[in-house]
Amino acid sequence: MREFLVLFNHAPTSPDRVRLKDLPGSGRFDLVCRVTTQALLYSHGVRTDTVVHLLLRGPDDPPKTITVTGRRVRRLYPDERTTAIHLRRALAADPDTEPHPGIFVRRADLEDLLGEMKGAKLYYLSEDGRDLEEVEPEPDAVFVLGDHEGPTPEQDRLLRRHADAVISIGPIPYHADQCIVILHRYLDVKRPPEYAHDPSNVM
Amino acid sequence: MREFLVLFNHAPTSPDRVRLKDLPGSGRFDLVCRVTTQALLYSHGVRTDTVVHLLLRGPDDPPKTITVTGRRVRRLYPDERTTAIHLRRALAADPDTEPHPGIFVRRADLEDLLGEMKGAKLYYLSEDGRDLEEVEPEPDAVFVLGDHEGPTPEQDRLLRRHADAVISIGPIPYHADQCIVILHRYLDVKRPPEYAHDPSNVM
Repeated sequence: MREFLVLFNHAPTSPDRVRLKDLPGSGRFDLVCRVTTQALLYSHGVRTDTVVHLLLRGPDDPPKTITVTGRRVRRLYPDERTTAIHLRRALAADPDTEPHPGIFVRRADLEDLLGEMKGAKLYYLSEDGRDLEEVEPEPDAVFVLGDHEGPTPEQDRLLRRHADAVISIGPIPYHADQCIVILHRYLDVKRPPEYAHDPSNVM
Repeated sequence: MREFLVLFNHAPTSPDRVRLKDLPGSGRFDLVCRVTTQALLYSHGVRTDTVVHLLLRGPDDPPKTITVTGRRVRRLYPDERTTAIHLRRALAADPDTEPHPGIFVRRADLEDLLGEMKGAKLYYLSEDGRDLEEVEPEPDAVFVLGDHEGPTPEQDRLLRRHADAVISIGPIPYHADQCIVILHRYLDVKRPPEYAHDPSNVM
């Protein structure tokens, strides 16, 4: 399984903070949405082997982790607005529930998530890491990355301690959603996925 | 210079067809927006060496080509909604104008654009093409791709006739915006860009 864990230290954790007409001004919720869709969608299909964890630590009710699983998710469309509506519903739901098929919400911070991921290969993306093609990460692994402001120094230390390798994916900095697209394609070439097409679930 | 030409045969050409609350239902205008931003933005910066041409052929006033140049564009943000507002304004403007800095609109169909691009290296993306890493495209080139429904048979024939090579970029089909991210990163590694950082123009 491919897993992505993305740290959003300023993204909102209460639904009233997510304004559909101003997702960038809503703690960069536009980026949270694009990370979700780029992790889980390819052309006309859902990546059923992929899971994305969105660690949200902004106001008013942090921390919350929203986990979206490709195997279970329904009605995930590639645009930001409908994704924001799904994720906002998750922020309105009680923790430890699945308010939409394949979208889970719970109280979990980075330490909790790293504890759960023990045993998995873990790669941390950072501009000072080793080249992707040199590290050759496994397709079955967890990839951890920060948002546009990056992890805190404390999170950075924790991640370097847990990571099997620190990876840089190119000579310039990319948006988190772009990093995910680049990683996916690298792993797709390494081991081509065999997705069963389900036309009922995509656009 | 890197150029991307993306064919949207169903995307609207009149501004009233672009509904901000339903970009997917607006002839997949969400994809038009993501193609624009993924072509021109990296983390905290604009790709000043890149140009994207959006060939729109849907209702009610086709064809229109919107060209966005990284060197000139201002206030381009990574979210779909503000990009849709910029592009909708271009659809409302008279042809052969620049209604927003760096965003040009004109009457031009595929034949016109291919005529203008004569002399440039031209690569056409198609699932039956040769592997990206085998073709090794030049960074200074035009990359042509279709949207989620692909080019028409006539466009396909025209593009195969003009292309220096037909490229496949991976073992599964990707969204047009994902293809652009993958191509950019391939070219970035091949020849690292040196972008001057302009903090006034990005988020």
